[in-house]
Amino acid sequence: MNAPHMDPDEFRRAGHAVVDWIADYWATLEQRPVVSADPPGTVAAALPAAPPTVGEPVEAVLADLDAVVVPGLTHWQHPGFFGYFPANTSGPSVLGDLVSSGLGVQGMLWATSPACTELETVLLDWLAQLLDLPQRFRSSSRGGGVIQDSASSATLVATLAALHRASGGRWREVGVDRRYRAYTSAHGHSSIEKAVRIAGLGTDGVRPIEVDPVTQALRPAALRAAIEADRAAGDVPAIVVATIGTTSTTAIDPLPEIGAICAEYGIWLHVDAAYAGSAAVCPELRWSHAGLEYADSYCFDPHKWLLTGFDCDAFWVADRSELIEALTVMPEFLRNAATESGAVIDYRDWQVPLGRRFRALKLWFVLRWYGVQGLRAHIRSGVALAARFADRVRSDDRFELAAAHPFALVCFRLRADNDTNAELLARVNRTGRVHLTHTRVAGRYTLRLAVGSPQTAERHVDEAWTLLTDAAKDLLNP
Amino acid sequence: MNAPHMDPDEFRRAGHAVVDWIADYWATLEQRPVVSADPPGTVAAALPAAPPTVGEPVEAVLADLDAVVVPGLTHWQHPGFFGYFPANTSGPSVLGDLVSSGLGVQGMLWATSPACTELETVLLDWLAQLLDLPQRFRSSSRGGGVIQDSASSATLVATLAALHRASGGRWREVGVDRRYRAYTSAHGHSSIEKAVRIAGLGTDGVRPIEVDPVTQALRPAALRAAIEADRAAGDVPAIVVATIGTTSTTAIDPLPEIGAICAEYGIWLHVDAAYAGSAAVCPELRWSHAGLEYADSYCFDPHKWLLTGFDCDAFWVADRSELIEALTVMPEFLRNAATESGAVIDYRDWQVPLGRRFRALKLWFVLRWYGVQGLRAHIRSGVALAARFADRVRSDDRFELAAAHPFALVCFRLRADNDTNAELLARVNRTGRVHLTHTRVAGRYTLRLAVGSPQTAERHVDEAWTLLTDAAKDLLNP
Repeated sequence: MNAPHMDPDEFRRAGHAVVDWIADYWATLEQRPVVSADPPGTVAAALPAAPPTVGEPVEAVLADLDAVVVPGLTHWQHPGFFGYFPANTSGPSVLGDLVSSGLGVQGMLWATSPACTELETVLLDWLAQLLDLPQRFRSSSRGGGVIQDSASSATLVATLAALHRASGGRWREVGVDRRYRAYTSAHGHSSIEKAVRIAGLGTDGVRPIEVDPVTQALRPAALRAAIEADRAAGDVPAIVVATIGTTSTTAIDPLPEIGAICAEYGIWLHVDAAYAGSAAVCPELRWSHAGLEYADSYCFDPHKWLLTGFDCDAFWVADRSELIEALTVMPEFLRNAATESGAVIDYRDWQVPLGRRFRALKLWFVLRWYGVQGLRAHIRSGVALAARFADRVRSDDRFELAAAHPFALVCFRLRADNDTNAELLARVNRTGRVHLTHTRVAGRYTLRLAVGSPQTAERHVDEAWTLLTDAAKDLLNP
Repeated sequence: MNAPHMDPDEFRRAGHAVVDWIADYWATLEQRPVVSADPPGTVAAALPAAPPTVGEPVEAVLADLDAVVVPGLTHWQHPGFFGYFPANTSGPSVLGDLVSSGLGVQGMLWATSPACTELETVLLDWLAQLLDLPQRFRSSSRGGGVIQDSASSATLVATLAALHRASGGRWREVGVDRRYRAYTSAHGHSSIEKAVRIAGLGTDGVRPIEVDPVTQALRPAALRAAIEADRAAGDVPAIVVATIGTTSTTAIDPLPEIGAICAEYGIWLHVDAAYAGSAAVCPELRWSHAGLEYADSYCFDPHKWLLTGFDCDAFWVADRSELIEALTVMPEFLRNAATESGAVIDYRDWQVPLGRRFRALKLWFVLRWYGVQGLRAHIRSGVALAARFADRVRSDDRFELAAAHPFALVCFRLRADNDTNAELLARVNRTGRVHLTHTRVAGRYTLRLAVGSPQTAERHVDEAWTLLTDAAKDLLNP
């Protein structure tokens, strides 16, 4: 049996071993297959059915990590990982999060760890500057930012604040007693339907608005028509969720027109830039955020494309009091002088859970270590690599681009039927060298290549292209 | 400007420095004041108004961590931290979480990192054995476990599954179209009201049930009366949230009687053992879980009293299909062969967010390093230290115990008015040597001392008692 607890010296020794393990993992990542080929149940079957009675050293766990766990992973940090949207991390992020774990503070209230709250407020103001977000989102105005676990949760709390507003404050007491409605494009993320369902509006509460067939962006005229129809039926339009960079194709909804409609009808506008928000660190990509001054709330995920490990969604509101009123509950055991003074932020009132870990630290390490220049270089590298790949697609008559590629996602397909494209994806992924995923654009099966990993370089994108063309050759000339 | 990204060698070097920083922090923790005395804004004022243009080395960030951040923290891992419920971590937990950060995988689907899902399923089965939970919660039955960020989120998803059931499946499509009601004791956690509000039932949707004046536990007869009254009014009872170990006093609601009522009326029973669940690793404390076989869902927080860093709530359901039906949304970009085979778990359908970090790793490191014996020793140490402190209270006529102390929380007060007790708390906390918080029991201001930190030993509890009696002497004989 171990000594009762791991003392600082033992932590130091074992901690160096774990750091070395991670450094070795990263150094060898490229040699691993991106995705495991093992069938379901392989990892579970290799683990004992019960926890050990007597404690074991860290080295024993690391050995099983190598033998059992790592072979069953999809390696999201692999330079050949091009699936979904990336969930990039970086050395500085890992170290900032390690400090957070080591401190083990819990920032539900300002009073429960003031620096945890204040660093977060400052970091969200830094990010707002970095992206050149409207002044109303800064903590020096009536707004402010907070870290959520994900854009899903950001959409949920935005929806709750919107219900609070749309109900004139009744919702807090009586709940959903009218047919409140939410609007988003037919390409809005699935988390919007989920948030609306969680909020008690049902799937019927989401009105999917048609998109322009060329840009895949929400059609403002269709939005207006849907709002008018619902109002005529006695329903209550509560929130519009517009997207900068849809998951399917990185389409950009026209915020200036959507925002004007929301303003006209008094509807909450939430802007989901989960993936593409990171692009706004580069001045030349900020055109994608035009019209953001209309938004009541906005979020993006530094854990997608800004080198910060999951989970880290940055969420801002233009009027923090609406969010806080919607979410606050004050039991006796949390009462404290700082809260009652009104001079502090208690972030528990900005989110679903009560407790909070010190997630601002990983953002702080990333922003300090990279600096603005380093972050811009990372985004520009991704955009350039995607453009390089798109050029390959464009120059090969067998292939076609399925959508514009303003950021680092390229949507493309073989000029062939859906089944052939699905088989192309399967073959390429089976090589273990790259991992791509798919979507459907106007019903047609489409491959997606999203660049994001810090390790991804030209040779990885070129290898993906070679694997695709080799597989295409076999498929088209069997 | 730094090189574009931190390479493995640089990570190794900086990682050792960060591990050393944490080891030094833990070694010196006891010498620090538990709580910062700085006024609001101190940390924010010491930070620059903008992120750096050019990147900086990790050492510069660590220097600011020491100079700016740490002086503004409340040290939750301090041996003199007795506030709220503890949020304990441990060396093994920190290392497991470090591996998670380093791997940077995202386990929203089984297919997006199979080992992330399978290790979690196995770990939750291990925990179910460790606590001797009913068989129906094991993955080999129709149930299963999942890690949520917190008990707040566990209560929320339980509420959503309960609404799905109570509506006969209508809720998913049409939302909240009847007056669904939730029941919990007047000492139920604030997160229950918050979850019910988020779910669209409003604060009116929560029915606080009176407690027994001696045990502070929910009165089953009052629960039955409330359910009957609501049914008579046409309302729909959907969920009862019973608590094992309330936040105020660690009261234990009578599950056998509550469970029978829920079974009679077909109401979902969720059991919130956020704090006290960890006690069930010790066979001699499992009496607190009697009646759990009635529960449809159950959760406890390893991040409270089982040496695992925040965030880690372990949540089980007896019928996973109800939870999944309530929460699933399937967009094209997430479709995959494994999901369609029905042979795998996709944990995104068990929670609010879509994305997931690999939180099972920290639990794995904790369970392996401590072993069952080590975990039991930790719980027994906390219970014994609390009993030691309660003996001091009991033996001093100036003080009184305000509630039973079955676990590691002692509720007590001076035999004096509320203001005197509030002043006692303030004086003791101002010493910086300990940190206690308060509650109200039957309207009376009550101090809470919760033991939990791995570093807390007899001398820390004794010091707390000395500080309390010294302050009491001054207060009672000014």
